[in-house]
Amino acid sequence: MWLRTSCELTFDIYVPTPFILMLRPRSGYHQWIAREEYKIKPSVPVYEFTDIYGNLCQRLVAPPGPFSVHTSADVMTADYIDRSPGAPFVEVQNLPDTVLSYLLPSRYCESEKFTDMASAITSGYQMGYDQVWAIETWLRASISYIPGSSEIPISAVEVNQRQSGVCRDLSHLGIALCRSLSIPARLVVGYLYELSPMDLHAWFEAYVGGRWYTFDATQTELTGGYVAIGYGRDAADVAVSNQFGPPVYPISQHIEVQLIEQEPD
Amino acid sequence: MWLRTSCELTFDIYVPTPFILMLRPRSGYHQWIAREEYKIKPSVPVYEFTDIYGNLCQRLVAPPGPFSVHTSADVMTADYIDRSPGAPFVEVQNLPDTVLSYLLPSRYCESEKFTDMASAITSGYQMGYDQVWAIETWLRASISYIPGSSEIPISAVEVNQRQSGVCRDLSHLGIALCRSLSIPARLVVGYLYELSPMDLHAWFEAYVGGRWYTFDATQTELTGGYVAIGYGRDAADVAVSNQFGPPVYPISQHIEVQLIEQEPD
Amino acid sequence: MWLRTSCELTFDIYVPTPFILMLRPRSGYHQWIAREEYKIKPSVPVYEFTDIYGNLCQRLVAPPGPFSVHTSADVMTADYIDRSPGAPFVEVQNLPDTVLSYLLPSRYCESEKFTDMASAITSGYQMGYDQVWAIETWLRASISYIPGSSEIPISAVEVNQRQSGVCRDLSHLGIALCRSLSIPARLVVGYLYELSPMDLHAWFEAYVGGRWYTFDATQTELTGGYVAIGYGRDAADVAVSNQFGPPVYPISQHIEVQLIEQEPD
Amino acid sequence: MWLRTSCELTFDIYVPTPFILMLRPRSGYHQWIAREEYKIKPSVPVYEFTDIYGNLCQRLVAPPGPFSVHTSADVMTADYIDRSPGAPFVEVQNLPDTVLSYLLPSRYCESEKFTDMASAITSGYQMGYDQVWAIETWLRASISYIPGSSEIPISAVEVNQRQSGVCRDLSHLGIALCRSLSIPARLVVGYLYELSPMDLHAWFEAYVGGRWYTFDATQTELTGGYVAIGYGRDAADVAVSNQFGPPVYPISQHIEVQLIEQEPD
Repeated sequence: MWLRTSCELTFDIYVPTPFILMLRPRSGYHQWIAREEYKIKPSVPVYEFTDIYGNLCQRLVAPPGPFSVHTSADVMTADYIDRSPGAPFVEVQNLPDTVLSYLLPSRYCESEKFTDMASAITSGYQMGYDQVWAIETWLRASISYIPGSSEIPISAVEVNQRQSGVCRDLSHLGIALCRSLSIPARLVVGYLYELSPMDLHAWFEAYVGGRWYTFDATQTELTGGYVAIGYGRDAADVAVSNQFGPPVYPISQHIEVQLIEQEPD
Repeated sequence: MWLRTSCELTFDIYVPTPFILMLRPRSGYHQWIAREEYKIKPSVPVYEFTDIYGNLCQRLVAPPGPFSVHTSADVMTADYIDRSPGAPFVEVQNLPDTVLSYLLPSRYCESEKFTDMASAITSGYQMGYDQVWAIETWLRASISYIPGSSEIPISAVEVNQRQSGVCRDLSHLGIALCRSLSIPARLVVGYLYELSPMDLHAWFEAYVGGRWYTFDATQTELTGGYVAIGYGRDAADVAVSNQFGPPVYPISQHIEVQLIEQEPD
Repeated sequence: MWLRTSCELTFDIYVPTPFILMLRPRSGYHQWIAREEYKIKPSVPVYEFTDIYGNLCQRLVAPPGPFSVHTSADVMTADYIDRSPGAPFVEVQNLPDTVLSYLLPSRYCESEKFTDMASAITSGYQMGYDQVWAIETWLRASISYIPGSSEIPISAVEVNQRQSGVCRDLSHLGIALCRSLSIPARLVVGYLYELSPMDLHAWFEAYVGGRWYTFDATQTELTGGYVAIGYGRDAADVAVSNQFGPPVYPISQHIEVQLIEQEPD
Repeated sequence: MWLRTSCELTFDIYVPTPFILMLRPRSGYHQWIAREEYKIKPSVPVYEFTDIYGNLCQRLVAPPGPFSVHTSADVMTADYIDRSPGAPFVEVQNLPDTVLSYLLPSRYCESEKFTDMASAITSGYQMGYDQVWAIETWLRASISYIPGSSEIPISAVEVNQRQSGVCRDLSHLGIALCRSLSIPARLVVGYLYELSPMDLHAWFEAYVGGRWYTFDATQTELTGGYVAIGYGRDAADVAVSNQFGPPVYPISQHIEVQLIEQEPD
């Protein structure tokens, strides 16, 4: 399906503030970007680099005063999410080198603390896809998804204590559980068509059967319409906006995802 | 200045043909891409990767029949080209690692054959920027720039024999001369505002005084308005369109570069 | 100075166990490896890759039974550690791209929780090197260095609660404090000549004044004799030995660092 | 089999001369380095980097006077070379991204000039491994292998004119022929056990059936005992020693490869 995504972030800046933004979705196997806009007001020098996970990141210094970033894209993405029950566990020795860093514990995914819990949740399931599916199902049933309930990322251990969280929190717990079973897992930040309430979204991917598969415990049923902006080990790596210096928060954030009937001409 | 670039390539395809395209200008230190479109007709799956030089490349298989690619971008680029007479030669041992591959001979730049000639051309000039400037000046005076005079890349040795060539040819000779003096040099393919006749363009950059500088022997005077699409050792690395299998040539190619008065809204 | 390092790890393996080892020091700006040995008993297929931080890592599957890894190297390393009081803070917008990931919070360095504490510790110090020095001095005075006191990495928050730790723990706290001030910091694992008791060692580096500097709160006075094996955001990234599957611990670990009078012949 | 390799290069230096060496074989899928020595006389600062092809390279400045480099390694390598008749051609669209640069013409492999010739040589052969085998067989029958017959690399076109060459020359022609058929091919420089006369060696690899296979037209029958030092598009990329400034040649070069009966203790 073709989607038109839009993200507008507005800030009120007091001192010149360095930003690292991650707001440019990349074309790749999963999605194709046919049109893209990236506007910054006021206009300041920006330059772009590719981070260690392959994300396109933009660096700039926001001047004092109102500052806004508006990105928009027309994206072809899959109508349906691939499900692959039975896809086998990949033994660590057979994982591609580039996937190995997604096995390690990270800031918000203390995977080394979840071994027993993951074994319990996935007990009786075939190793691989089915284990991750069991984890996703368990998350959906056990951790309340409460959009907007937290601003600041909390870690998998804390999510498990609270038994509730935002999309990012459920993903962090899912990732920690996967990694504790030696299944590589990573966080994805992006858009989801018909997400309600509409916002930026986060989900996770697990590497089984020789490729990455999408999982999302916040949705009762997985539909298509996912647009990835960034990938990383957890939310520390894939903030769409990182500011440095005195804290600065968006004074407004406006997200839209529309279906567009056919390829824009 | 803000420029709107447009490139439309049309092909007539007889058998399914794999393409590697390099038609997505990247934001970076030199330029900022505020809007971009990339249309392929008919629509086929495309995916993107980053090559060893950092270029964004698109892979697809064109089906039999008419096939077209249309890209467009709004780009902020410099009004003036930096000139820096006196910028010093960087000793090989002090070059950044990433620059070293631009010292080696490559397909169309047989730099190992130009040592004597480069010494003669740059005799009396200070090592560094001034040598490259002397090379650019010599090229402008000695090699006739004849747009459209060749389709297929020829090497620096052949360019020097013919004493004429297209923009790519003059650049190849300039690069070979620089490298023979241990000055890293690379080919850039892209757009140039007010190029006459309008077409895709090629120029070269040399690494002196700790950074890359732009040189272009096809222009009497260097103005701003350069938009880079791809970088590489020579034209073998930076074809905007590479096809595999039975030969396929564009049946039409339409390039436009317009000045846009202010940042598009 | 020339050092001969040796590391022997012995394991008792029950089921075939995938390992990722990081035991090959790399030559670079800081050190030169003139001789190296890497023995694995029993001999099994091993292959090597470079991780996202540039470390050389070895992958293998250890068979059931006794399993040992013995590495040894002759290394030229600096006699003295560079100290550079007054080296300035590098504004985030001026940091090299490759350094930015060392600004983010990571598994064992929850830097986002240390802003107030870091400000207090470095109050009155000039921004940059002097702040890191103040942190190192504070660590030395405030956190007891107790070699061998813990096997499993604990995070900066926990280290700060316990007020004691091993070399890795003090480094994690130092790193978290630096990053909370927007100073990039990373963990280094390696050898230190005359460390007492002799063991593998961990210290940290901070990026100020345009380069990485060494800090080590476990030593009263910094001498030379550091040999780096691996770099990363924290201990999650730079385990010299990572095993997957049922837990396996070294049954013995033997480390030696000898001064060798001159370059080995 | 276990091999002990040794390479000693001696130079007479007149002015301080920057070198880039590529003399450190890497462990990987094909070979394991169990012991290694790297001696430079006189001792000068050296540092190491990884080039765009993954080779470990050493940078240094040789001072005036006699200068020598001596490297040695104990390497486990395969007893037999994999042959895989029938391994299929990989369509360009299915090649891994990292392999694509080995499809392009390069300094010494003007692949765009060999399309007709390659079609003739491989006529009647199945696409893929069998085509490369036909090329190797044709090279062995048609191009005389004359060790020591040239110092300076010549290109595939020139090799084909001369109908003779050193190992590097036969490889360049083989690579150009493969690439003209859209088969990725690369040059390997290294050691070969029982090469006669003993010297550094060069061979080529082609990517068919989903992996790289070894080909060597200089040997009547391929045995095992290959130790790779460096990979690249052609000899421009994989010089074991690159000097810059006034030309410097080895005054002596001594290579040894011994079988060692068992793993060194």
